[in-house]
Amino acid sequence: MKFGGTSVGSVDRIQAVADRIAAAVRAGDRVVAVCSAMSGETNRLIALAHEVSARPLPREYDVLVATGEQASIALVAMALNDRGVAGRSFTGLQAAIRTDRAHTKARIVDIDPQPLRAALERGEVPVVAGFQGIDAEANTTTLGRGGSDLTAVAIAHALNADVCEIYTDVDGVYTCDPNVVPSARKIERISYEEMLELASLGAKVLQTRSVELAMKVDVPLHVRSSFDTSEGTWVTREVPEMEDILVSGIAYNNREAKISLIDVPDQPGIASSIFSTLADQNINVDMIIQNISIDGTTDMTFTVAETDLDAALDALRSIQSDVGWEHIETDREVAKLSVVGVGMRSHAGVAAKMFQTLAAVGINIQMISTSEIKISVVIERKYVELAARELHSAFGLDASA
Amino acid sequence: MKFGGTSVGSVDRIQAVADRIAAAVRAGDRVVAVCSAMSGETNRLIALAHEVSARPLPREYDVLVATGEQASIALVAMALNDRGVAGRSFTGLQAAIRTDRAHTKARIVDIDPQPLRAALERGEVPVVAGFQGIDAEANTTTLGRGGSDLTAVAIAHALNADVCEIYTDVDGVYTCDPNVVPSARKIERISYEEMLELASLGAKVLQTRSVELAMKVDVPLHVRSSFDTSEGTWVTREVPEMEDILVSGIAYNNREAKISLIDVPDQPGIASSIFSTLADQNINVDMIIQNISIDGTTDMTFTVAETDLDAALDALRSIQSDVGWEHIETDREVAKLSVVGVGMRSHAGVAAKMFQTLAAVGINIQMISTSEIKISVVIERKYVELAARELHSAFGLDASA
Repeated sequence: MKFGGTSVGSVDRIQAVADRIAAAVRAGDRVVAVCSAMSGETNRLIALAHEVSARPLPREYDVLVATGEQASIALVAMALNDRGVAGRSFTGLQAAIRTDRAHTKARIVDIDPQPLRAALERGEVPVVAGFQGIDAEANTTTLGRGGSDLTAVAIAHALNADVCEIYTDVDGVYTCDPNVVPSARKIERISYEEMLELASLGAKVLQTRSVELAMKVDVPLHVRSSFDTSEGTWVTREVPEMEDILVSGIAYNNREAKISLIDVPDQPGIASSIFSTLADQNINVDMIIQNISIDGTTDMTFTVAETDLDAALDALRSIQSDVGWEHIETDREVAKLSVVGVGMRSHAGVAAKMFQTLAAVGINIQMISTSEIKISVVIERKYVELAARELHSAFGLDASA
Repeated sequence: MKFGGTSVGSVDRIQAVADRIAAAVRAGDRVVAVCSAMSGETNRLIALAHEVSARPLPREYDVLVATGEQASIALVAMALNDRGVAGRSFTGLQAAIRTDRAHTKARIVDIDPQPLRAALERGEVPVVAGFQGIDAEANTTTLGRGGSDLTAVAIAHALNADVCEIYTDVDGVYTCDPNVVPSARKIERISYEEMLELASLGAKVLQTRSVELAMKVDVPLHVRSSFDTSEGTWVTREVPEMEDILVSGIAYNNREAKISLIDVPDQPGIASSIFSTLADQNINVDMIIQNISIDGTTDMTFTVAETDLDAALDALRSIQSDVGWEHIETDREVAKLSVVGVGMRSHAGVAAKMFQTLAAVGINIQMISTSEIKISVVIERKYVELAARELHSAFGLDASA
């Protein structure tokens, strides 16, 4: 049972978490809890680090921010004991969560299940600090944002748990953002692969890294609300029934910008020099489209995060004379929209239906990119909410009224 | 170099601490720093524990409050690295500070000097979390209030340090409270024994437990300001020169109350039953005076903290019929005043001079108690500041104008 920052964000919420764990124990479950820092605490600590040092030493940064989770686990363990449940806090070190040495973004190398197993055998409920581990020299490390989910998945795997429950402030993963598509409904069950493609829907709920790890080690995730006991969304390996559902969800990202390089010489090595220049500046490129060559030149279009656009243009200008395109066109007002579903693998016509639906409401498609279980398009940003609603309805995702 | 809560109480103060350590390192010193939590932080964490639980589980209480020092050491280590000094934080576990299992008030059992020594040999400045250690099962423990001083003294001993510097917000130990006796001056050098007797002067600066430990292991303490570089007060073993100073300081406690049991039967076991009753209620009794017996009864007078007076009277009433004194008299308006100095051992007349000085200003002495290096009297509370000033002057403690 993993509880995020808002789930342990106040004394009242901590009491509610303890009630929840105690109820599970009384129902016969053997439980390990994983807790994030109280909401706001990690940001407070990070701000403190930056006030003290312009470039906080990563080793010490980790020692500092790890205190947030250490406080949470102590408070939750106290509250459990008040309920007659033998809660016992475990730091990353005590839970034997071993990582590499990459401070502030460490990767879990392995978890020795022995300390947690011994606690479970004593009838205790281990309450483990998320987000933290130790390297080979017992230095404290942290896993980066969303690391508590990773901790929970890795522990579930190490203990061969039946399920890793991710408690959060929403009650599951939705077919689309309910703020934009009022008829969006909670997804009951979804595959790891779809969940990864739906990252923009799940970002608030599940970090991509934790879904990737869950997929790799095949730990079923159950994303559910810490405020009520309703079933949430199960994220599991693909099962045949999933193919009956053509599209599982619709995701979009309206913080993208589009860059087109016009009349690029069509020679080997050109694309490489463009995209390695951007990579050197830590600029992530999303969709890339290259048209066929006409008269020895081609057009190349790609999207970057809107916030990276200016840096991308600076980087590109520095190589324009070497690469020799004719001119650059940019568009800050675009959005990427994706339909996702494992059912696409066995059903034709999803792309056609998507394009027809958009055309029917007069939305022009600027770029198209497809994968086995996803079709993404780039459209003018102002149409993205309309497009999401139309596609949601067209693919039968609307909640029955 | 031990820095208390106010010394690391803000980002600016942490920078100042790092400057101070860096200067010592550049001057050629090999330094281990010990830090308390930022001022206010421990109280914040304790309040949080009590909000979550009426009786916080001691093991978890320790895990929680230990985060305060863990944050401080990370911040100080960061600031040191910004100054080109290889600061490296050490939790109680990493510094191998082993304690007993008495959570919230643990005693240091031993410190393995190896981890800190290895760091020093690598040219690093270990920055150690005060107040915390681990028990035999690697559970986090805390040493109770003032525990950071204990940590510093114990580390100084383990590493055979030349001195344990206690940095604080005052510049040393004074002959009397300067707010009451404006002519009070900083004591240059004082013995452990005197420092213990002057606890009420030093309480804000040095905890009794840390002085006791320093005395036991003979670690010289240097109590000094973290705000300037002036010499503070050295607390060391007694040296012959100290005997030249008749009185080292004058301490008082104006939060005492006096209880007199009148006409107590003078029989064996009476005193024992009275004081064990009070001890059972955790009431500390300070001075005890028993007059000689007249007609088979005696009067017994003692002092308790004023805040304990009502509880003491309740406890005494419960045994009055068994013990059988005639009646009780109480006085809430008393104070205890002490003159302290190892010079008393070899010089007669200190008591006489004290009594004469008080008599000369019309102050009546209600109780007297003496030890080898201290004379204490109980007087009416309203006279205590006057008495302190008169004695300070009479014993030649006034700063030369």
